[in-house]
Parts: sequence; C-alpha cells; structure tokens
Amino acid sequence: MPAMPTITFIFLEASIEPIPKSIINHPIILKDSKRRKRPPSEILLDDSKHHAAMKDLENCRKRGRPDIIHFCLLSVFDSQLGELSDVYVHTIDGKIIKFSKGLRLPRNYNRFVGLMEQLLKERKIESGGKTLIEIKDYDLKSTLRSIDPSQTLFLTEKGRKIDDLKINVNSRNAILIGAFPHGDFDHKVLEVIKNFNPVYVSLGSKSFTSLYVTNRVICLLEDLFDIT
Amino acid sequence: MPAMPTITFIFLEASIEPIPKSIINHPIILKDSKRRKRPPSEILLDDSKHHAAMKDLENCRKRGRPDIIHFCLLSVFDSQLGELSDVYVHTIDGKIIKFSKGLRLPRNYNRFVGLMEQLLKERKIESGGKTLIEIKDYDLKSTLRSIDPSQTLFLTEKGRKIDDLKINVNSRNAILIGAFPHGDFDHKVLEVIKNFNPVYVSLGSKSFTSLYVTNRVICLLEDLFDIT
Repeated sequence: MPAMPTITFIFLEASIEPIPKSIINHPIILKDSKRRKRPPSEILLDDSKHHAAMKDLENCRKRGRPDIIHFCLLSVFDSQLGELSDVYVHTIDGKIIKFSKGLRLPRNYNRFVGLMEQLLKERKIESGGKTLIEIKDYDLKSTLRSIDPSQTLFLTEKGRKIDDLKINVNSRNAILIGAFPHGDFDHKVLEVIKNFNPVYVSLGSKSFTSLYVTNRVICLLEDLFDIT
Repeated sequence: MPAMPTITFIFLEASIEPIPKSIINHPIILKDSKRRKRPPSEILLDDSKHHAAMKDLENCRKRGRPDIIHFCLLSVFDSQLGELSDVYVHTIDGKIIKFSKGLRLPRNYNRFVGLMEQLLKERKIESGGKTLIEIKDYDLKSTLRSIDPSQTLFLTEKGRKIDDLKINVNSRNAILIGAFPHGDFDHKVLEVIKNFNPVYVSLGSKSFTSLYVTNRVICLLEDLFDIT
C-alpha cells in the first residue's frame, strides 16, 4: 500500500456568509433578528428561514445553504482522512476558513450555524489555547499558492469520468469540491483554479450532491491508501 | 460486473420518537411546546433542545438525536443506491418506518424534524397520491420476516473486519446499521437479529459514526456493482 501523501481539501463557494446589507430591512430578516436577539450582520444567511427575503439577491439559488458544507465537513471529519488532511472552506463571498485536523464539529445543524456565526464575528474559534477554526487573511489564489500543489484535482460535472483517483504520493495534492446547490462555479473562481493546472474530474455523467461527491472521494482515497 | 441484487437497508434504533410522557411537565419541554405552539406529544425529542429534561430518561445517551438518521438517509438517497434499495428505519421505541425508493428528503435539519413530526402524527406522508414515508404496523421481526433475507449483513464494532462486502447476487440482502450515538445495541434488537443468521461485520477496530458506516457501505456496494 502506498504511503499517505499530503492532501488538502478545499470546498468552494460554501454558504457561510452573514445576511447581506441589501436585505437587512426585509420584514422576514427583522423578525428573525428580533427573535434571535442579534443584528442581521451577525446572523448566517439561511434559505430555510430567509427565502422570501433572498429572491432579489444575486446568485440567490446558490446562497443560504450552510447545511451543504455542514454535511461535507462531517463526512470528512468522521473519516480518518479528517485527521490526516488539511481542510479549507472557500465561501461564496470569498473568505477562506481553515479547519484544524481531526476537528469535532457540532453535528446539530443549529449549533453548527451558531458556531459559524461566532466565527464570522470573532474570526477564530479557540479551545484550550488551540485554534480550531479560523478565517484567514488571504483569498483562494493565495491559499492555493501557499499549498503549492503538485496536483490539483478539481471535481466538476464537466470533468473526465474517473473510477479511481490518481494521486501523486510524496507530493502535495489539493482536492477541490463545490459546496453549493445549483448552477456553475463562479467564473472568477474558475479563473483562479485554472492557474494551478487542475485535472478536471467527474464521478459520472449525472449531477451529484456535494455530500455524495465528498463521500465518494473519501472512499476512493481510503481504498487507495488503505486507511479505513 | 455482477447484476444489482435486492438490497434492503434497515437503520436500527434511530431517534425518531415524540417527547416521552414522563417528561412533558419539565419546564424546558413546556417552554418549547409553547414556542412551537404544539403539544409535547407532537414534538420530536431532540437532545440539542431538551437535554436538561432528558437526564432521567432510560437510555438517555442514545436518544434525542434525529440528526444521525437524517445524515444516513441523505447519504443513501444522494447515491444511486437510494433509487435501487428499500429503506426502513427502526426507531428506538420500536416503530418501523418505510421510506420510498429515490425519495428526496428535506436537507435542512429543522425541516426534516418537522416532517418526522408530521409523520408521527399522521402515520404517513403522501404526495401526488403516492405514499413517500409510512409508519408500518409491524415490528423489526416481522419486517425482517417479510424481507426474508438470504443474507443479513449486520454492521457492528464486534463483527469481523471486512475490506469488501460479500453480497449474494440474485438474492435478497438486508444490511443493518445502527443509527444511535453511543452504547450498544439493545439486547432485544440483538435477539431478533440473531434469528436471521446475520453475518457480523465491522469496518475496522475503532468506533465509527453511523454516517461514516453508511457512506462506506454505499461506496463498497457501488464498487461491487459498478453503479456510480
């Protein structure tokens, strides 16, 4: 069995953003703000609660879905890969969040939302003197530069169908997975990724959820490196 | 590649139960009941909200975690196995819930909880004249009898470590996975399962989450039957 190489997961365009300023006066937002006793700027945009207020937002179908990245992160951290890999989340508004190896995230959705709201406010989550989650001061491009991947696997419907992942052992591999529900990757995101000579890969001809893609990639990596 | 056999997933001891009568007068429950404007008997027990009221409940550490079965079901239905397999959920209070093939469940946790509360009240969820989810009038034993599995794979820490699933093609396979957070299977559940000559299998020496076990089993089945 080959040794485990360095792997960095980067989830792209995840819905971890506060309620945008343009809709803070919508009655639905005001009501939620009152109920939760906090200003809209400290509440995570959530389609299940704020749907009616979101319809005029740009890219509204891609936004307000923190459940998607919650599932993906739980799947990574439930596997041993979560102890061995670096995990970054790129958000739909361009932030980069770093999650520490082997993290135990809240499994309850509402608690996860609360934690992300705390993160947006305080920029880091610490426990026992250790930083568990942190918003970084750089963007997607500088994140990829700092990883300096020798191979970038970009999971996309438009990629080449794979049965096995080809991973360079003794090298730095970045694995990019979209964490949004509908539509295409943002063209600016695609432009950034293009600079890192990605291998465009797909798991099949149909459209899969981010959770499914994450699960399948984890399983393929586990088989490749015999780490179950 | 072998043809896809009949596969039935049964998730065991899942936390889909109403607030038990013994705690309906606890201040936390009364408050939640008032806030949600429904009686405690129509509210799903949820450790993230009712923790303080649950500490005297029998098996309290195994209960109030509907998030676990929510994740497992999403993982099944996000894969093509969800279109090909029967899915049953056995609840911690002994009910059997049947989920129709290819079901699209709410991905938002709070909406899933709402749907399960509607199910407990009305015993079935229908859409367009079709039954999507239904509480059956039988128990775990009669469910297994009706499936009449030629092979029963029981995922348990105490099983034999497997790398591949051995599945009998052209036969009826039942796959049993626990959907609770801590502790062992109930001895009554174990007694029932024992009658169906299960193969006790494990994915490794450590303890895995229900989500991880579900994901891994799905992936092994996909590889076996080349259905990605």
